[in-house]
Amino acid sequence: MTPSLERLVEQFSKLPSIGRKTATRLAYHVLSLPESEVRLFASALIDAKTTVKLCSVCGTLSEYEKCDVCSDERRDSSVICVVEDSRSMSAIEETREFKGVYHVLGGVISPLDGIGPEQLKVKELVRRLDGTVKEIIVATNPSIEGESTAMYLKKLLAPHGVKVTRLAYGLQVGATLEYADVSTLSKAIERRTEL
Amino acid sequence: MTPSLERLVEQFSKLPSIGRKTATRLAYHVLSLPESEVRLFASALIDAKTTVKLCSVCGTLSEYEKCDVCSDERRDSSVICVVEDSRSMSAIEETREFKGVYHVLGGVISPLDGIGPEQLKVKELVRRLDGTVKEIIVATNPSIEGESTAMYLKKLLAPHGVKVTRLAYGLQVGATLEYADVSTLSKAIERRTEL
Repeated sequence: MTPSLERLVEQFSKLPSIGRKTATRLAYHVLSLPESEVRLFASALIDAKTTVKLCSVCGTLSEYEKCDVCSDERRDSSVICVVEDSRSMSAIEETREFKGVYHVLGGVISPLDGIGPEQLKVKELVRRLDGTVKEIIVATNPSIEGESTAMYLKKLLAPHGVKVTRLAYGLQVGATLEYADVSTLSKAIERRTEL
Repeated sequence: MTPSLERLVEQFSKLPSIGRKTATRLAYHVLSLPESEVRLFASALIDAKTTVKLCSVCGTLSEYEKCDVCSDERRDSSVICVVEDSRSMSAIEETREFKGVYHVLGGVISPLDGIGPEQLKVKELVRRLDGTVKEIIVATNPSIEGESTAMYLKKLLAPHGVKVTRLAYGLQVGATLEYADVSTLSKAIERRTEL
């Protein structure tokens, strides 16, 4: 393997979940591409890194000072959906169900990893409660950390006279009871709805 | 997702065995890296593509006119190991067992894919038989195509008075008989060696 190919393999293997074998396969693939394609790939890397900043309002990834959602006047800014990261926000946007705005925490409270509320954009969230905000939907992941972050936010925000809600737990659409995990199934029974 | 991030996801998803979900994860990972790291990655892509050429003798990937093996005078140029691609050659080099030189075919004969001997570097191989070459080891993969390419080369090269050999078939080192496939096991029995 030539030194420059070796360096490319190294770069690929630094990516998450890409081992040395896969990295080698990807590097050889790059050599088989036309040079113009490789240049497109290289500039896509640099462009994404240099143009993407954080929205000054909600903290999501954005190429402008304010992201698409925050600068869209049709969005209901009285409902803020709090998410862990921009990926969660994209997932919710894809449902086209939510008409409010977002707030990206930048993670979840996780004492074992040394992450407390100070490491997250919690202060920035509180600062957004200017009296016009009626509801905060806490959409952190349904993990232990996501759950305790939700409880923390509930306690913190309640005194501000704002309604704090959480995404519903339940069975996945299309799931079979047989394969549902125990805790999901018990939540689904506990929070059953009338037909 | 911002347009530049979207373009990066597209680039990643063009890579073999990288689906849209993985591509998205990789693109977000790139955003989390320091800019200097991203620039290193981008230049590794371009460097590999622009500096790596084919060795003028054996056809493997090389940054110089002649590859490391072909320009190493300690290598025995009377034994040529014929491989499908540079990756096979790297695999054999890693064993540090083989002291001869290589010839990279650039594929295998596969009529269904429209690949005949003309599409491969077969003529170039014949041209290397200048009387000093004693043995050609055909190290194409043990697939149907690799096997028929080996048979084709055997017929083509025999009249040139050169010994044509094939890599041994047998059990993998560390394998258990229970999990060996039938054809490997039958080859292993057929070609058993005396202890």
